[in-house]
Amino acid sequence: MGKVEFKSGTMLYPLPVVMVSCGETINEYNIITVAWTGILSSEPPMCYISVRKSRYSHAIISKTGCFVINLTTERLAKVTDWCGVKSGRQYNKFIETGLTPVKAPHLNAPMIAESPLCLECKVVNVMELGSHDCFVANIVGVQADERYIDRKTGEFNLEKANLIAFSHGKYYNIGERLGFFGYSIEKKKKK
Amino acid sequence: MGKVEFKSGTMLYPLPVVMVSCGETINEYNIITVAWTGILSSEPPMCYISVRKSRYSHAIISKTGCFVINLTTERLAKVTDWCGVKSGRQYNKFIETGLTPVKAPHLNAPMIAESPLCLECKVVNVMELGSHDCFVANIVGVQADERYIDRKTGEFNLEKANLIAFSHGKYYNIGERLGFFGYSIEKKKKK
Repeated sequence: MGKVEFKSGTMLYPLPVVMVSCGETINEYNIITVAWTGILSSEPPMCYISVRKSRYSHAIISKTGCFVINLTTERLAKVTDWCGVKSGRQYNKFIETGLTPVKAPHLNAPMIAESPLCLECKVVNVMELGSHDCFVANIVGVQADERYIDRKTGEFNLEKANLIAFSHGKYYNIGERLGFFGYSIEKKKKK
Repeated sequence: MGKVEFKSGTMLYPLPVVMVSCGETINEYNIITVAWTGILSSEPPMCYISVRKSRYSHAIISKTGCFVINLTTERLAKVTDWCGVKSGRQYNKFIETGLTPVKAPHLNAPMIAESPLCLECKVVNVMELGSHDCFVANIVGVQADERYIDRKTGEFNLEKANLIAFSHGKYYNIGERLGFFGYSIEKKKKK
């Protein structure tokens, strides 16, 4: 249990790895993959993405003030990686990957049809932090693939979607379920 | 692939689930579990945690201006859950869980000895967003459990630590490795 000082600073894992789609017109549509993302507040629902100033999507989102966070799955792992290493300056990423853009209902931005869940985000603030600018956003709509929604309960079965995680430079699927929020006190009650 | 509007806004998963430790004196030491956390910038390394104003740790971190993010593992899943549902107003969480506080080298806050990796964080800004306040912080030190560090390469073997993820109200271990950052273009080269 001895601890030693470690050089790398950003060792917070596992992280979500999402495809962020943006752009007002079909010609401008782009996708950037980010892991620097998270929820900032529950009510109102708010999130962020952090993007380097040099990235093609940075200028698009700065102009349009909106983007879509598309959750990614095992099946989408390879295109997720590709959209993270290639630039929209060189490629039309929707055409190259075969992913399908669908205009988001509440935004001037596309969603990715193949994603199980899309968060429509409106930028409310930008924090310039150094290597990355942090786009702070309100989540103004959530579009869910209806095949994962239970018709009786209305619940979204996220397990079925096979989401992926990013950890220390690698992509993983999600493993075994260990418990639910509150399970530590449920078990105590039963004893 | 039809999409329907979904009610819940904060559906960004999988997320890290970490134990945040804080407090200047042993009596004040506390642990709060959060999933609303992420990396904001790589250089300088910056991160955040979002915490409700009502939480016991909120007042402590507001006063001390610092906290430690302790990554959590399969073995720590149950105490991680417990520290998220119980309040430091009622319990001394280190004593109740048996977790071991060790003073962080660069902060007036404890680390959790049983965590494989601890990020020492100094608050630089607080955003009041609604249900949660977002503590924006510089990562000023990383303390790694030496048993996961390769003596030859100096690399940290995060896979060995068995980190856990939080997704839609449940805890999971990490599953199968699907690829590494850049693997989509590596494979193309080989063909």
